[in-house]
Amino acid sequence: MRPSLHRMLRQRLASLGITLPAATKPVAAYVPARRHGDLVYVSGQLPLLDGALVLSRALGPESDLEAARGAMARCFLNGLAAAALAADLDEITGVLRLGAFVASRPEFTDQHKVANGASELAQQIFGDAGVHVRAAVGVPSLPLGAAVELEILFTLKGA
Amino acid sequence: MRPSLHRMLRQRLASLGITLPAATKPVAAYVPARRHGDLVYVSGQLPLLDGALVLSRALGPESDLEAARGAMARCFLNGLAAAALAADLDEITGVLRLGAFVASRPEFTDQHKVANGASELAQQIFGDAGVHVRAAVGVPSLPLGAAVELEILFTLKGA
Amino acid sequence: MRPSLHRMLRQRLASLGITLPAATKPVAAYVPARRHGDLVYVSGQLPLLDGALVLSRALGPESDLEAARGAMARCFLNGLAAAALAADLDEITGVLRLGAFVASRPEFTDQHKVANGASELAQQIFGDAGVHVRAAVGVPSLPLGAAVELEILFTLKGA
Repeated sequence: MRPSLHRMLRQRLASLGITLPAATKPVAAYVPARRHGDLVYVSGQLPLLDGALVLSRALGPESDLEAARGAMARCFLNGLAAAALAADLDEITGVLRLGAFVASRPEFTDQHKVANGASELAQQIFGDAGVHVRAAVGVPSLPLGAAVELEILFTLKGA
Repeated sequence: MRPSLHRMLRQRLASLGITLPAATKPVAAYVPARRHGDLVYVSGQLPLLDGALVLSRALGPESDLEAARGAMARCFLNGLAAAALAADLDEITGVLRLGAFVASRPEFTDQHKVANGASELAQQIFGDAGVHVRAAVGVPSLPLGAAVELEILFTLKGA
Repeated sequence: MRPSLHRMLRQRLASLGITLPAATKPVAAYVPARRHGDLVYVSGQLPLLDGALVLSRALGPESDLEAARGAMARCFLNGLAAAALAADLDEITGVLRLGAFVASRPEFTDQHKVANGASELAQQIFGDAGVHVRAAVGVPSLPLGAAVELEILFTLKGA
């Protein structure tokens, strides 16, 4: 079963035109992902692409929502790559929870629209098993000045 | 056992004068609640009543704490209704964790008092099994301009 | 096995010169820690020492990072003491996840450096099993005006 599921997820990613990025290496005293039972816990992911933030600074009412949604999608892909460090990619079956942090000025209240960038990609990749629970909240600032950060709980086979 | 437990929770709610709201329908690519093992994960709930926020905007030192506590209690009820979409109500036995986000101006530091609105209701409804761990933090803003948001982990029978 | 592991963790703490604080007593309708399966969920811990905050107010670029790291380490110790209320200390084997909230003015973007104060201590105490996933985010304010708050998921034997 594993090889075929493995091919399925790889094929799904390919058919969506998605190339999984190289996972960020562990830094300091924490890891990008850790398996526990039939879940993979993933550290808060920043919207890094080739080592640089794709979007920084707090969002306001004038901000480009599409860019913010794209940054969240980038976080999700980085998180999937991170999860693949802790479990075989063919074992990852879906998404249980997303925690979406959106750097926001007080007058910005569209955190849910920004988070949809990750939620919709999760569903594209995993289908029904990608439909998850979610919390989306504003924060004043994030590490490195990132505009968004995303925490992920993936499910594994047997869940 | 199930029918009697079912009656117990319904009766408890009735004896507290609590009518469970209609659960919010799934919107976009996430769901209000998802079962995993002996837990139900619930999405961040806003203090919605009949489709409108009962409290909006960030809190400050001059804010009405009772109104904020009430808004958190509303989130909890909405979350219980959401959980009942993912599990039979008679299977829900208690509360493991609350994540309480309170829209706050920087000088507001009573997030714990606001969160008590949900914590006390959890205990009223579930008794000892409703006593949970909790994180309560400030945020600059929340989706739709809500004053509070609440994430919940419910326990199921067998937990 | 239990007595020797118990001695190991106590000895490790002693060899690091660490005295576990008295755990904060349960207040209101939530508890400092709750066991679920092979995990201990710990409530958001504040940097309290002998009942007083070791660091308060939001951080900015001019803030003392060492003091902030120390406050996070204090949260971690308080959380370990809390976990020992819900499980035997000898059963606690490692750390699965840290949720680090750093009270931040918008221009402060070193939340990850602050969180390292807890992450490094987790690794010192638990070794490889202390290496965890983590989310570190800014918040405008925290209960009692604390500068930092830390949520912890500990693993138990059998995990």
